[in-house]
Amino acid sequence: VDAPGGPILVFGCGLIGGSAALRWGAARHEVWGYDRRDLQPFVERGGIARQVPIEALPDAAVVVLAASVGRIIAALRELPFRSGQLVTDVGSVKAPVMAAAAALPTGVSFVGGHPMAGSDESGHESAKADLFDGATWALVGAEEPVACVASLVAELGAVPLSCDAAEHDRVVALTSHLPQLLATALAAELEARGEPLSRDLMGQRVRSFLGLAGSSFEAMWRDVLTHNGEEVERALADVVARADQPVEGLAEEFALARRFAAGLPRPLRTPRT
Amino acid sequence: VDAPGGPILVFGCGLIGGSAALRWGAARHEVWGYDRRDLQPFVERGGIARQVPIEALPDAAVVVLAASVGRIIAALRELPFRSGQLVTDVGSVKAPVMAAAAALPTGVSFVGGHPMAGSDESGHESAKADLFDGATWALVGAEEPVACVASLVAELGAVPLSCDAAEHDRVVALTSHLPQLLATALAAELEARGEPLSRDLMGQRVRSFLGLAGSSFEAMWRDVLTHNGEEVERALADVVARADQPVEGLAEEFALARRFAAGLPRPLRTPRT
Repeated sequence: VDAPGGPILVFGCGLIGGSAALRWGAARHEVWGYDRRDLQPFVERGGIARQVPIEALPDAAVVVLAASVGRIIAALRELPFRSGQLVTDVGSVKAPVMAAAAALPTGVSFVGGHPMAGSDESGHESAKADLFDGATWALVGAEEPVACVASLVAELGAVPLSCDAAEHDRVVALTSHLPQLLATALAAELEARGEPLSRDLMGQRVRSFLGLAGSSFEAMWRDVLTHNGEEVERALADVVARADQPVEGLAEEFALARRFAAGLPRPLRTPRT
Repeated sequence: VDAPGGPILVFGCGLIGGSAALRWGAARHEVWGYDRRDLQPFVERGGIARQVPIEALPDAAVVVLAASVGRIIAALRELPFRSGQLVTDVGSVKAPVMAAAAALPTGVSFVGGHPMAGSDESGHESAKADLFDGATWALVGAEEPVACVASLVAELGAVPLSCDAAEHDRVVALTSHLPQLLATALAAELEARGEPLSRDLMGQRVRSFLGLAGSSFEAMWRDVLTHNGEEVERALADVVARADQPVEGLAEEFALARRFAAGLPRPLRTPRT
């Protein structure tokens, strides 16, 4: 299934939106950008064909909401989408986004999306055409529009994966939101203790994991942790209960954990710190 | 300061000992291996000059104890080290190892060591000559023997770092032991929940972090978590207290965490999953 022909409007040209714009542009889509910031430098870099005011929204064939979960929900409620448009988003929580999208006018097709890629960098300056190479891109919605968005995200190098909103939010609470919270809490404790050797006495994988802690609370995580708070709280309690045991009790946790780790695919490339 | 001339005996030719042996051998040291396993395949690969019985111990100039912390402590108590030998280890906890080493005969020089490198693989089959490239190698002991061991580990590509045993154990509780425990608990919870999409809905850094969960409880972590249990328990409680807060309270944790992350060096290469 092909995506509708016509311009793709990327609403929010930060790291995620900007990276998608760069790659779609290279694939000869006409890509427009909307952002509160001046996108002229990004136009000059070839990231988008032009920066448009919000009044241009009805002229886009596809609209990609690439902002925080809170701004995505606000956009779904407030922007004048028109019948025939395909609208998608990149928010890290799907159930509240799908609920907001349910109120869209008849004829607007909405697909919830979530690329499992990112970086602690932000802004179109850090956008990279290869950001999504090999990354899973979760898609939630009806079969036909999901197939359209799948073909678009496949052009970004991502691997589309259809799933249910509640399932998505439950799983990413453990695979993404809790890891972010733990990386943040660990890095905060290290910063607070201020031990001079703490950045040196560290292996490569933990260093890369703690790089997650560079990610922004205001731009991203406040909304994610608010909108998926219950699942994250449950995930934290479940994981802490497994960790907080006498040493001998941990034998079973290590055995379970090894089974999970054995099924992990090898990483495709170096994580960015 | 140069290390004493003469054979290096690697006591325990697993991933760590085997990787060091490979690289020292390539640097034209005479390297002997001791292991309960038959090391003939490792001799044939050029990893060591020969496998020796424990009776050969006094003939070595340098002895590297590359085993679990429990076996290192037992070896320090039981093996017939001789005056003039330089002995070091690779255990992940240093205070109990230094305490055991304090009872060594006069004239035996001991330096506690801990390379911040590893993998979920084990055995000499997984040994790699470049395992330590760029990795910090903590060293604990008196200035002169530390300088000798520093020159040896620098030949492995590692970056020697002198520190105090208690300081080391406090820091690695947060930078290594707790991350291992959290990766294990998270992977165990994911395995227990058995959600079909949990390996797909995951970014590269978390995937690499969860690769830690492939590491062995029996061969390594039981001893580490037993011997550094108090520090790890404190680290877990401190980190959980920071994570387990209402969302608004997390703003400050994210701010602290970003300051820590900003000072992290970039990783040198792809972490192994």
